[in-house]
Amino acid sequence: MAFAYRYSQLAEGMRPSPIRELFKMTQRPGMISFAGGLPDPAIFPVEEFASCAEALRAQGPTALQYGASEGHRPLVAEIQRRMEPLLGRPVSAEEIIISSGSQQVMDMAARVLLDPGDVVVVEAPTYPGALHSFRATGARFALVPCDEHGMQVERLPEVIERCRQETGHMPKLIYTIVNFSNPSGACLSEERRRQLAGIAHGLGIPVLEDDPYGELRYRGERIPTLFSLAEGGVIFASSFSKILAPGVRVAWAVGDAELIRRMVIAKQGMDLCTSVVAQVLVAEYCSRGFLESHLERIRAHYAGKAAAMGAALREHLPSSARFASPSGGFFYWLEIGGDSRRVFERAVDEGVAFLPGPAFYPEPAETVGETVDGRPHARLCFTFAQPPEIVEGCRRLARALAQP
Amino acid sequence: MAFAYRYSQLAEGMRPSPIRELFKMTQRPGMISFAGGLPDPAIFPVEEFASCAEALRAQGPTALQYGASEGHRPLVAEIQRRMEPLLGRPVSAEEIIISSGSQQVMDMAARVLLDPGDVVVVEAPTYPGALHSFRATGARFALVPCDEHGMQVERLPEVIERCRQETGHMPKLIYTIVNFSNPSGACLSEERRRQLAGIAHGLGIPVLEDDPYGELRYRGERIPTLFSLAEGGVIFASSFSKILAPGVRVAWAVGDAELIRRMVIAKQGMDLCTSVVAQVLVAEYCSRGFLESHLERIRAHYAGKAAAMGAALREHLPSSARFASPSGGFFYWLEIGGDSRRVFERAVDEGVAFLPGPAFYPEPAETVGETVDGRPHARLCFTFAQPPEIVEGCRRLARALAQP
Repeated sequence: MAFAYRYSQLAEGMRPSPIRELFKMTQRPGMISFAGGLPDPAIFPVEEFASCAEALRAQGPTALQYGASEGHRPLVAEIQRRMEPLLGRPVSAEEIIISSGSQQVMDMAARVLLDPGDVVVVEAPTYPGALHSFRATGARFALVPCDEHGMQVERLPEVIERCRQETGHMPKLIYTIVNFSNPSGACLSEERRRQLAGIAHGLGIPVLEDDPYGELRYRGERIPTLFSLAEGGVIFASSFSKILAPGVRVAWAVGDAELIRRMVIAKQGMDLCTSVVAQVLVAEYCSRGFLESHLERIRAHYAGKAAAMGAALREHLPSSARFASPSGGFFYWLEIGGDSRRVFERAVDEGVAFLPGPAFYPEPAETVGETVDGRPHARLCFTFAQPPEIVEGCRRLARALAQP
Repeated sequence: MAFAYRYSQLAEGMRPSPIRELFKMTQRPGMISFAGGLPDPAIFPVEEFASCAEALRAQGPTALQYGASEGHRPLVAEIQRRMEPLLGRPVSAEEIIISSGSQQVMDMAARVLLDPGDVVVVEAPTYPGALHSFRATGARFALVPCDEHGMQVERLPEVIERCRQETGHMPKLIYTIVNFSNPSGACLSEERRRQLAGIAHGLGIPVLEDDPYGELRYRGERIPTLFSLAEGGVIFASSFSKILAPGVRVAWAVGDAELIRRMVIAKQGMDLCTSVVAQVLVAEYCSRGFLESHLERIRAHYAGKAAAMGAALREHLPSSARFASPSGGFFYWLEIGGDSRRVFERAVDEGVAFLPGPAFYPEPAETVGETVDGRPHARLCFTFAQPPEIVEGCRRLARALAQP
């Protein structure tokens, strides 16, 4: 007789990541994938990165031993150096934690801040991985709709007020990707950032500013981080996944020292510390100055791909399909009308994959206040495919859209 | 005005890892540390491991990209190969998940199986990191006392029955380290393993068999794993931390395919996947045959250290201090009488550190049924210090014990 496991209530509520699950389908032969939010492996700095393994030789007893839960000190120092101009002030080591990918920052923030039933305010659409981490603590969601400039911050007060009325409590956290959001590609304007920072601070609601794409701006001027515009209460998260390589699984958060201390304690029960081997390699990569030159290279590379996809979409898609051209990041966010999940099935038959809109919205059952309908939307990642595939993929998508 | 964070209830209940916190104290100059459960960095296979970085060159686009949440396939295959003789049958890839250290196995098991208020049966003493992960879901603990042969399994039915009476529910999980337990060093006899497997299976309670030390046997015959003796319901966890290097943060669990699938989903919200860079390096290390020769080397090395500490303890400690000689693993577990936390303070003044017993027991407030007093005990790790330090550290400990 098979053993019958009794799963936890929260495990019963977990759903597989739509991104990770579709990932498998997109590996069919001949499939052109705009689905996963993957960097272009053709531009990974393989030789430079592998050469950093000399640091494993030189620092073996440290690199192979347990490390501090807070992070490998030389890498913390590199992050301090990089963060100062972005965050508008020097940050101390006690304000930083290195994490196993920024997914772990979401998880740590969820565990340290959220109780079952607590509400997180998210922009709609938003990153499904963040929803997954928050959901794992039993949290619910209140949605602020987006336009082409990101979260419609002017609607934030009414969303918060409605949450307070419906649940009897203020939201516990606001989660936002202000730069080149996943999936919308939108960049929150400075004015909206100031408004958001002011509203959140005034109401005592912390903000998790998730910024994996901030360094990947292809045109226009950098806009100050929320962290730098706020008087406190902002947790800033970023990662080496998009600017170096996701396979290292090294990211970081910056925030109030007491909050970071609690994240460190939570992390001890999660994985003790982030792979020291990976941290030593990343620290060496940064200290040799490779990251800055690589960033210049990938900005130019991805800017070209963004332009190629924009041109192909304009050429091939029906005029009923609407989209803005992102100034950075990884994604085009299309309004294609109808139900993108149906279009997805036809597109896969045509040999092109994308992510249907509903993946980026919480379920109605876990939403407090108004829901937002993700069905008319589609996320296209432009970084992974090669330029000829980008053009051909857009042609295939157009064919899928032309079908009844 | 500083921003005031409102923390979650579970975060308020978290405590810093006593091991990780003491780690800092033991880094004082001149301190001889028996405190951390650290491998000897002098025996890390630095050159062999660093040479595996050639695999990062050869497999760059894979090694640097996101990987499957289930684990890097070539490493899964290595683990399948290694597990078959230990688990008594071939295991499929769907029965394996690669994790970011075995700490993450505890965390995944906790999230997938435990609701707040659920009870986990643990042997007393047990690994504090496991308590930390279970506590993070709001679990409580029922304790089965240990003797020099590990968990007193004959007392397990009464502990379970008392839990059922006091809480109205059966325990949700049994957690055990059957080989050279942390901290007790004890190895559960085959007869007790059979009893434990039978009781757990009969009552439908899953067992998490945490086995980081099983390959580090210095004398005597290997005893079959619980997994191989049970008819199902056992989750087996092991790690490269003790047999290769903790700094890689690569471990694994083997279990029922549906349970593993749920752990994979939980992991997607934790860190998406374990560092692919680290997994590629470990897979290469294994495939080159380095692990088997390294295992032979460390077994001999640590056997010598265990013997050195045993001899020094017998020579220097008062006869009132009692201990068994472990047949493997990392630890001596001493009964020194009185309050080991007081002895710890004196020992640190003498220049030697260990871990006081109470670190290895749940708090009375989170315990269902009888509590066990950890104060008379002390854990000494024999793997980290060098042999002359082992002798001198035991002399210092004897001086601390001789003080009133």
